[in-house]
Amino acid sequence: MSDAYLAGAGMVEFGVHYDWSIDDLIENAYLELLDGVDKGVEPREDVDAAWFGTVDVAGDAMGGTAVSNATGLYDLPITQVVNACATGSDAVRNAALAVRTGDVDTALVIGAEKMHEDTSGLIASAATERLWRGRGVTMPAFFGLRATRHMADYGTTRDQIAEISVKNHDNGSKYPYAHQRFTCSIDDVKQSPTISHPLSLYDCCPVTDGAAAVLVTSEDVVDRYTDNPVRIGASEVATGSFMRGGENSLTSFEATKNAARSAYERAGIQAGDVDVAEVHDCFSITELVTMEDLGFCEVGQAGEFIESGETRLNGSIPVNPSGGLIAKGHPVGATGVAQAVEMYEQLRDEAGDIQVENPQVGLTHNLGLDRHAAGSVCAVNIYERV
Amino acid sequence: MSDAYLAGAGMVEFGVHYDWSIDDLIENAYLELLDGVDKGVEPREDVDAAWFGTVDVAGDAMGGTAVSNATGLYDLPITQVVNACATGSDAVRNAALAVRTGDVDTALVIGAEKMHEDTSGLIASAATERLWRGRGVTMPAFFGLRATRHMADYGTTRDQIAEISVKNHDNGSKYPYAHQRFTCSIDDVKQSPTISHPLSLYDCCPVTDGAAAVLVTSEDVVDRYTDNPVRIGASEVATGSFMRGGENSLTSFEATKNAARSAYERAGIQAGDVDVAEVHDCFSITELVTMEDLGFCEVGQAGEFIESGETRLNGSIPVNPSGGLIAKGHPVGATGVAQAVEMYEQLRDEAGDIQVENPQVGLTHNLGLDRHAAGSVCAVNIYERV
Repeated sequence: MSDAYLAGAGMVEFGVHYDWSIDDLIENAYLELLDGVDKGVEPREDVDAAWFGTVDVAGDAMGGTAVSNATGLYDLPITQVVNACATGSDAVRNAALAVRTGDVDTALVIGAEKMHEDTSGLIASAATERLWRGRGVTMPAFFGLRATRHMADYGTTRDQIAEISVKNHDNGSKYPYAHQRFTCSIDDVKQSPTISHPLSLYDCCPVTDGAAAVLVTSEDVVDRYTDNPVRIGASEVATGSFMRGGENSLTSFEATKNAARSAYERAGIQAGDVDVAEVHDCFSITELVTMEDLGFCEVGQAGEFIESGETRLNGSIPVNPSGGLIAKGHPVGATGVAQAVEMYEQLRDEAGDIQVENPQVGLTHNLGLDRHAAGSVCAVNIYERV
Repeated sequence: MSDAYLAGAGMVEFGVHYDWSIDDLIENAYLELLDGVDKGVEPREDVDAAWFGTVDVAGDAMGGTAVSNATGLYDLPITQVVNACATGSDAVRNAALAVRTGDVDTALVIGAEKMHEDTSGLIASAATERLWRGRGVTMPAFFGLRATRHMADYGTTRDQIAEISVKNHDNGSKYPYAHQRFTCSIDDVKQSPTISHPLSLYDCCPVTDGAAAVLVTSEDVVDRYTDNPVRIGASEVATGSFMRGGENSLTSFEATKNAARSAYERAGIQAGDVDVAEVHDCFSITELVTMEDLGFCEVGQAGEFIESGETRLNGSIPVNPSGGLIAKGHPVGATGVAQAVEMYEQLRDEAGDIQVENPQVGLTHNLGLDRHAAGSVCAVNIYERV
């Protein structure tokens, strides 16, 4: 069984792209990828198949041919993958599985989302349609409740939660692909408009258009593209439920714990082996609970862990060097693929101003909720320096 | 590399299910599958991962957790696959790829579509949004033009085209899962209301709700479930374009030809080796041109080939024993999975009144158009008696 490798990466600057359709987003990420393959790639000759991650906010895709139309790559098998906010990482996972069969040597993965199109409907309806909306539990409220519960159960402070946003904006201000490139203080975060107590505007990720692409290849052909690839050590998805009595907690996601356990086992590592991580900070509190669910710190200790600076760029385990969803943005289907793009750069020491010191193992994490808010989905991918 | 096998199958009766949500459709197909595993399956113990095919007409899915909610199978990796009308077959393909890596031994595949929800929007917009709608080319017109072109180029007759509907209704009248279980004559077809010349109402598939499920397993574990499995000899997808000058024809789909070529090569067979086929007769003319694209007959000869009776249940290559999309119905994400369900039955001699005589090799074919109608996608799967 061949391992799967990242052999190239590219993405567009995340932001507000009213001037681009989803086709334009796909095309531009694809062109950036072509530039991001060390020894070059002849896409019509080399690419055997593609996976396309989008939840299709714009209602314009309905399948893989969106990629053929935007790239001119016809005749390929191209599969659209949808998995809520974990869509991009799951596209990487399905490509990696195909590469490992030997049927596919070189796969293109593109994640893209045109959020400035029909976002109000999506964001309003996400996670709330049947069970929660009538109770006022929109997405910010859903996560706000987790924040108040973590504060009540473990003594986590508002400042500790705000520190996540401060750190991620610090990082994002240095990352050329990030949407929100400014720095802010804990007071700035706390004084920004309240969205859902205790979360303020700066605790929330913005509405962002974007696209990202990676080349996933087998061991057999990776040398054709680069002498410095990144190994995909694991790519795992798990689903969880909020509907099972007694098993659930407001301060933990079963899906994250299950996906992380599978990923660590598959890659033969432990949480302590991770040198750099991109995690799903759709809200600041989400990053906080994720620290515990991934095993980066003890349960109940994430507030202090974050306050200690361990997750800053120069800490023991830098988290969200790119600025995460809060500063980089969260174009749903692109998010996981953009995390892969950054890991490709980090593990090749090419991440510029956000470079972590000599990382050997990178982890990416995406968490999604379905429209019923009855379940969650999590993807955890492990990337390794070769 | 392990082969992948079908080790169980189940589906709901296709039809108008205003009383069922998409969750209900999924749940009922899943329960039918559990009943359809010879030696039984303990889903919580045995199933390692799932793939879920839906284009989500109802706007209710947004990821794999729709399956966990409906089945109670939590903690699984579940990926939603979207690929226009080829969605269900592509879900089978992604499951088969995963099984062949060895990471996954037992995969659940569910295809489901709740069409009686928002269908008018979908059907009106499908394939026409940017390029065609303003020119009046809705889906029936898109295929009607192919019919008139085939008639003009090759002398194909209206009666030959209508004979496809007659045959498929004959077959569907015997299939307990089919939506439209009545027989009709060539005159009945021709005298039904004109939809888009020369296609009449009976040349078109109906609007149908449905769901279907199969168990896809590795060679290592298949004996656990059945002594009589069906091998997945190939599962291939290709995309094509209508935008490339000179390469295209109104009477042929590049995507079908490419997917078929890949599938025959992967399975080590030729068109003449196929003993039974389910093909994508969204319109009668689609089945006609598909006969040529799959290599079942010479280009230009499909009219006579169909008239000869060779594709009837007792012919040399029975096509659409289930009634196809025209009689069985076309709940988009379920269609390809339902084809797999039927192949599981045919290749085990358990297809009842639509059983073909001693088939060794079955083929399924789905054809989809994207919303731009700029491209097409085709899935061809080969199933083999073990």
